[in-house]
Formats: sequence, structure tokens, C-alpha cells
Amino acid sequence: MQAVVMAGGVGTRFWPRSRRRRPKQLLAITGTASMLRQTAERLRPLLPWERILVVAQAGHRQAIREELPELPEANLLVEPVGRNTAPAIALAAAVLQARGAAADAMVVLPADHVLRRDAEFRAVLAACARLLQQHDPLLTLGLAPQRPETGYGYIRRGELAAQVEGRDFHRVERFVEKPDPDTARALVADGRYLWNSGMFVWRVSRILAELRRHLPDLRAGLDLLIQAHGTRGWEAQLNTAYSGFPSISIDYGVMEKAAEVWVVPVDLGWSDVGSWASLAELRQPDAAGNVVPAGCLTVEARGNIVEGHGRTIVLLGVSDLIVVDAEDALLVCHRERAQQVGEIPARLARLGKESLT
Amino acid sequence: MQAVVMAGGVGTRFWPRSRRRRPKQLLAITGTASMLRQTAERLRPLLPWERILVVAQAGHRQAIREELPELPEANLLVEPVGRNTAPAIALAAAVLQARGAAADAMVVLPADHVLRRDAEFRAVLAACARLLQQHDPLLTLGLAPQRPETGYGYIRRGELAAQVEGRDFHRVERFVEKPDPDTARALVADGRYLWNSGMFVWRVSRILAELRRHLPDLRAGLDLLIQAHGTRGWEAQLNTAYSGFPSISIDYGVMEKAAEVWVVPVDLGWSDVGSWASLAELRQPDAAGNVVPAGCLTVEARGNIVEGHGRTIVLLGVSDLIVVDAEDALLVCHRERAQQVGEIPARLARLGKESLT
Repeated sequence: MQAVVMAGGVGTRFWPRSRRRRPKQLLAITGTASMLRQTAERLRPLLPWERILVVAQAGHRQAIREELPELPEANLLVEPVGRNTAPAIALAAAVLQARGAAADAMVVLPADHVLRRDAEFRAVLAACARLLQQHDPLLTLGLAPQRPETGYGYIRRGELAAQVEGRDFHRVERFVEKPDPDTARALVADGRYLWNSGMFVWRVSRILAELRRHLPDLRAGLDLLIQAHGTRGWEAQLNTAYSGFPSISIDYGVMEKAAEVWVVPVDLGWSDVGSWASLAELRQPDAAGNVVPAGCLTVEARGNIVEGHGRTIVLLGVSDLIVVDAEDALLVCHRERAQQVGEIPARLARLGKESLT
Repeated sequence: MQAVVMAGGVGTRFWPRSRRRRPKQLLAITGTASMLRQTAERLRPLLPWERILVVAQAGHRQAIREELPELPEANLLVEPVGRNTAPAIALAAAVLQARGAAADAMVVLPADHVLRRDAEFRAVLAACARLLQQHDPLLTLGLAPQRPETGYGYIRRGELAAQVEGRDFHRVERFVEKPDPDTARALVADGRYLWNSGMFVWRVSRILAELRRHLPDLRAGLDLLIQAHGTRGWEAQLNTAYSGFPSISIDYGVMEKAAEVWVVPVDLGWSDVGSWASLAELRQPDAAGNVVPAGCLTVEARGNIVEGHGRTIVLLGVSDLIVVDAEDALLVCHRERAQQVGEIPARLARLGKESLT
């Protein structure tokens, strides 16, 4: 088994903690380690560092090497330009193919999600690997929807395709892109729909074949990468190939078009930690519904989320706020506006405050 | 004329900027200078520094000397223990009597109020001094009420007692302590009531006589102070006398009981800067009603008051908040709770955070 950790994100919704050079996956928001490090360590009981690849932006190379010093240098794959998930997966699959791992199971994981049930997660991956010894589908992990979320994609599971280690693998009948609220409610009520987690397992050879089939613009670049791997020309060929790749997601570019796409329902204590508001799910609120650091004083304050930076923060008579303190900036935001935080860096840049973005 | 600036306050409602050693009157909240310095400079065109006394707490001695380096050392009168306004005025009057100024006009002013109309203020004081050459009342400056405020005392003006330089001096018919909301509305509607400003003018000899008459507990201490002034025993006698003084306000202890109390209606652009909420009256709000420092980014935010400390503050989708940034602490408070900020230092002390109080 090989794992690919997708660490190319920016995570501007975690401003002022997230910055261009310190994206969400490098922040220790959800524990004492960064989400990237937690993701890697979650895999370690299954895999040596040599079989973990990380795909990231050039601007984050140094920070990621510091965060994961055990990762072999050749396993940090740097995107010359930001694309979407299909090119990043193509890059990783090309490297694995060139290393002779075409028949291996390839696990693809976002670097910036939280999974509470680590052991269950590894058991699921082991079952997926076992399944791939007998079958050759594109596997996606599906999460039982917890609410009519409009920010995620949904997957409708169809007939049972296989059972391995007591787990059911279903054929996927249909993908649904981010739905409107009414549709989301209907999907949750239906009972057959799962959230699309962005976690995939497949054989290296199978995803390469599907990328070639459904994204013809990737073919020449894939051949170039496989040939150039391990040669002196690698960096130059990577630049050439990657610049020519279309910016498209793996879901839209491959999963929604391919045959033999299967889903395995999983229960992993998952959160995509999508915004500061999600801290209310990850940490234990106090009796007044406040999620605040030790030493924070709350007086007649309810439902607030505070991320401190060492200073004493006092909340008096306020409700449903997000307060995030950083060394050089402070955010005060209504909880319902947590998604809009992602716009702040661009607004600051327009005010000439690039140093804060 | 002699002036006494009452600088004994604590001003905890301006936490986290105000601290035990840095009370409200020493903060530059309302301009580039502290309110204490503004109060002294407002008097300077009328009076030399030698005729300005400042009464303050022992803990503020050093900070006040740094803020008013021109003030003669002997003119900073330090209260051995915190009392109320009657003892502070008694101390100043005793010093002036001992200095041979018994017949002078004595102006008493709070150190932590804002007056926008400096020249008019000095003209009022000049008229009061002129009046005191002919008459011997206790004079108080009365402000036209701007709203049915429940936090102030009110004065009902009676018949005209004198006119000087075109200004009307009325006998006071009645003092009203802080009223309930219904009473406050009735007082404002009545038209004859003025706000009690805490600014007084009287002859030194007259206030000493009234203090002796209405506060017999002060008599022995007053005699002690007048005798000890200028001697080596001053500090010890001050401690003895002051410790025995009752803690009582000049309004309750003298003004409400004395005969011949007059009021002169004045229009001075006054504010007592009672809480962070009052910054909305002192500074120009932007189109969305926000009072924020330069460089603060507001996005769909209305009616907020922000006091910065150099860091960039971003408000997103929030309304009617007070946000005060300080080096070691941060306050986020609803505007309607501005008065309750005064409770924060005591709450922090109970949490063992004395260093923040």
C-alpha cells in the first residue's frame, strides 16, 4: 500500500492564523500537532515513511519539511503551479508507476481533515487493500451525512458489490455536486446518500488508466513525468507537464465519469474543519456553549468560539462570536459568517496589507 | 483664583487600558494627551502652575508627576487612603487656607471629563470669580441635560440670584440623586433641571466653613492639616487626619445641605467619558456607525467601537460591539454592557490575574 497526502490547500478561512506561507494543514488547530502531521502519523502504523507521498505547493516546501522531517525528500512532490486534485493525483500516480508500484493500492487523503477514530480508519484501509487484491474498482470512502450540508458533494450507494472483513462495498449509482438546501434535506432523508469524503483507494495502474481515459489533456504530461522520474531533467519536465495540466477536480474529472466506482460507508469521527465555526464540534463547549481557551473570562457570554494567542481575552455580554487573536492581527466575526473569513486576505491585500495575508 | 483638579479616580470601566497604576484620567483616550493633562492645560491661560493643585491616590503619584512635570511637587496632594470627594476637597481647602489663600476663589474640577469649549469654560470661570467678589455662595456649574440619563445627579434651578457678564446665576431649589428612568424623563421634560457636573467654584473660607458645619467628623482633621502644613510632621499628620475622615461625597455631605447654593447653566461641550461607549460621541463614526482606528477593516459591520493597539483588527458581520485591544489583554463587549466593564478587574483578580488589573 502507498499513501498520497494532498497538502496543496491554502485554507484562507483560518485567517488570521492561516497565511500564504502557513496554510490550514500546517496549523495545530485541532490538537497539539498540525493536521498534516496528524494525517501522516495516522498512517504510520500501516506504512513506513518511504511509502507516504505528500503533494504540496512550492511556497510550502520548507514548512512541510520542517513539519515532517522524517519524510524522505523525494516523497515531497511540489506542484510548480497550483492546479486542482486531478493533476496532483496524476503527479503522485506517475511517480508511483515510475517507482515500480503500479500494482500497489494507492490511498489518497486530504491533509487538512480530522479523523477521531484512527484505529477504525486503518482497519478500513486494510479492508480496502484486501478488496483490491480481488477486484479493481475506484474506491471512495463515504460518510453518513450528519446534517443537510450544502457545502459537500453526495454519493448515492447502489447494489452491494462485495463484502470484505464484514464491510460492505457498494457500487456508486450517482454523484451529486454541492446541493441547494432543499435538495440537501431530501438527500439526507433518502438514507442512501453518503458524503463524499475526498478519501480514495485504488490501484496505481487503474487510476492512471482512468486519468488517461477521461482527461486526454493529461496523457502527454503523464508520459513525460513517468519517463523523467529519477533523471536530471525531472524538475524541468515537471514544470512543463504540470503547466499544461487542466485545473480540474478528481471528482468532476474522473470519479463521476468512470465505470466501476465503489463506495464503502465508514464512520471515522470525521470533520473537514472547514472554518473556525467547526471548532465547536471538535472541542468541548462549556455550559454556556463557549469554546474558549484556559484563562479566557466569559461574563454573560454564550456560544462564542475563541482562539487565543497567550493574551487574556474577556468576553462580556456577547453571543455567537468568533474571536481569533494572532500576533499581528485580530478577527472578530459572527459565527454565521465563518465562511466569509476566506475573503479577508484578499481584502487586506487590496488595502496594501500583503504582509498580513 | 486657585484650581483643584480631582484626580483620585480609578476608572475601571476603561479596562483593559485602565489599570490600577494607570487610571482613566492618565489615558489619552480622548485625544493625544491624557484627560488630566488636558484638564490642567485648559486652566493654564487663567492660572500659573503654582495655583493648580492636584489631589490623587498614592499609587498614582509617580505617573502624575511624569504626566505633569510642570506641576510644583508641593501642589500634588496625595491621599493616604482612598476616600470620596468631600475629604479630597477638605484636604485641598486646608492647604490653600494654610497658604494664606482663604479669600481666593477655589475652582474644583474632575480630572477625567472632556470639555470641548475651552475658551467658554475659562470665560465661565472668570465670571464666577467676579461674582465671588460680590457674593459668597457655593457655586456649581449646571449642564443642560441631553438625554434622560440615569447615571447623573440633577439640580433644579430656582429664582435668579445674580447676573454677571451676561450670565445668570440661580439659587438651587433641589438636588435629585441618580433618578430611575421615568423620573429622569420627567426631569428632562420639566426644563428647569440641569445635570450636576461635579465642577464647583467657591471661596476657600466658605467651603471650609460649610465642611465644618455639615461634616463635624472632619473638623479635628481640618485643624490638624492647617496647623501641620509646611512642617516636618505634615506626612504623619496627613495620614492621621485622612484616615479619620468619613468617605462621603461633597454633594451628599455639603451641597445638598448648605444654604446659598447657586447654579450657573453652562454649555461647554461636556462629556464625562463614562465608558468605552462614550467614544461614539467623542469621535466621528463612519457611514456604518463604526468608530474604528485607521487600518481597521470592517465588513458588513455596524455600530462598533474599536480601540486598537497597533495590530490590524478585522470586524466581519458584527454589530454594536466594543473591542479594546491592549498589549496583554483583549476585551470584546456588547455596547449596552459598557458599564459592566468596571467589574472586570475584580473578576480577574478573583482568577488570580492581578497583573491585569
